[in-house]
Amino acid sequence: MHRPSCFLLACAALLTGAAAPAARSPAEIVSAAPDAAWHALDPSRLLLMTLGDGRQVIIELAPDFAPVHVANILKLARAGWWNGAAIVREQDNYVVQWARMPEGQALPSGVAAHPPAEYERDATLPIVPLDFPDPYAPKTGWADGFPVASNGRHVWLAHCYGMVGVGRDMPPDTGSGEELYAVNGQAPRQLDRNIALVGRVVSGMEILSALPRGTAALGFYADPKQRVPIRSVQVVADMPEASRPVVQILPPGGAVFADVLAARVNRRDPFFVRPAGATDLCNVPVPTRRFR
Amino acid sequence: MHRPSCFLLACAALLTGAAAPAARSPAEIVSAAPDAAWHALDPSRLLLMTLGDGRQVIIELAPDFAPVHVANILKLARAGWWNGAAIVREQDNYVVQWARMPEGQALPSGVAAHPPAEYERDATLPIVPLDFPDPYAPKTGWADGFPVASNGRHVWLAHCYGMVGVGRDMPPDTGSGEELYAVNGQAPRQLDRNIALVGRVVSGMEILSALPRGTAALGFYADPKQRVPIRSVQVVADMPEASRPVVQILPPGGAVFADVLAARVNRRDPFFVRPAGATDLCNVPVPTRRFR
Repeated sequence: MHRPSCFLLACAALLTGAAAPAARSPAEIVSAAPDAAWHALDPSRLLLMTLGDGRQVIIELAPDFAPVHVANILKLARAGWWNGAAIVREQDNYVVQWARMPEGQALPSGVAAHPPAEYERDATLPIVPLDFPDPYAPKTGWADGFPVASNGRHVWLAHCYGMVGVGRDMPPDTGSGEELYAVNGQAPRQLDRNIALVGRVVSGMEILSALPRGTAALGFYADPKQRVPIRSVQVVADMPEASRPVVQILPPGGAVFADVLAARVNRRDPFFVRPAGATDLCNVPVPTRRFR
Repeated sequence: MHRPSCFLLACAALLTGAAAPAARSPAEIVSAAPDAAWHALDPSRLLLMTLGDGRQVIIELAPDFAPVHVANILKLARAGWWNGAAIVREQDNYVVQWARMPEGQALPSGVAAHPPAEYERDATLPIVPLDFPDPYAPKTGWADGFPVASNGRHVWLAHCYGMVGVGRDMPPDTGSGEELYAVNGQAPRQLDRNIALVGRVVSGMEILSALPRGTAALGFYADPKQRVPIRSVQVVADMPEASRPVVQILPPGGAVFADVLAARVNRRDPFFVRPAGATDLCNVPVPTRRFR
């Protein structure tokens, strides 16, 4: 009775002997996308984080949304700020967070200690709209490859799974970018426009999400020995070209992404008996793949 | 500059020297709830899953929504079905799943091999409503302590973080309850009314969510050695009373839950500069606590 390979996602391949071809699942559409549909991300916006055990996480920065914070983060990476850093917090169904060790060191020169609160921008960016109700904003969709919400005048990055933001203290402008977090659970959209989002994890989120949960308040690791070492964070464009990782996305606005979205909205692959007819913004991750 | 204990969540205690007392965060409201506000869950609905390393996960079953599946699951637990089982799948931002080992064994007598598709029920249950737009359903809220969606005629459990469902094959009635999963990421609400939800993890979800992600298709562990052993699954009511774990919830419909919900909708604790004014159903977990 058990066919684990069919569980919870369609196995259209098993059923396509019949007359009409089975509708494809979102994953099947992604797998079948031609190479030309994939767009390489700009290496000058990519951070490669290498953990102490050699596993790697790649973050795409969003300079169109948080230019001062992103400039800070690039300077911090180039100054080796996170070489020898550590993941210090993993709060279940909320965020994972990392910081330079030991904390409290002076910022490298040229890094703005008090950037402005870059929580939203004018709505002049082209948006690929998602036309379903959202509890948090009048409009949602994608801009520059990132999930966004908008009120028509302003647009802001949305706290979806894997989005990366800047830790801050109480005053809204105190987060320099020196301490970052990534969303590891249900989208905490109440943080939208309360803290600066600066990008998203485009490769390796499954590493960050599987770390042990911290048991101190807010999911900090109670014992410093539990912290997860970070060997280095580099700007990918600074690496020799032959050794750079390459990350591609299926961009919102492209035909394949439209197919993926339509299939997610109405699952017609064989497993599903009742298509949803809608989707939540954060339930449609922009597909990515990494080479090298 | 770094005060990790203040990061991302309010530290009202630091700021309450001023005139007006600071508004409380949801977590502070939960912490301050009087014992009388907490309700003990019925041990005859609770499953205690003990992993091979002794860590424990507790699941509350939802017989009002999936009575045949829940009856099956109780029979399976009482027959020792999952003693020596294993977690076989951990797909990032989707589900974690477990099964009896080796798979393919005959069901114990009395367990329905082909339960009906218990995906929704009539809307006669009292619902604590959440009055914000939802992309998937006309109405959302909580019934019997569980997150639900409704179209006015029918009500169904929603695939929020930590919800537990029944693996099935292609025909909608083939999931007996012998293989279960829990949601470990952004709510996959497209599964609502396509598969039987039977309860939720009320203690220990942070254990299930932190297991390594499987690398085979759909997040199954590629190597059987990667599977995570399950020592036993017991019905809590069958344990000697003195050794039973006790799980309590702050029930939706109660005054404290209403306070928590209001504080989540409009965060007025000091960290927040712009309250959201709304929330997504799955972004309001029903608070639980475990004793013993």
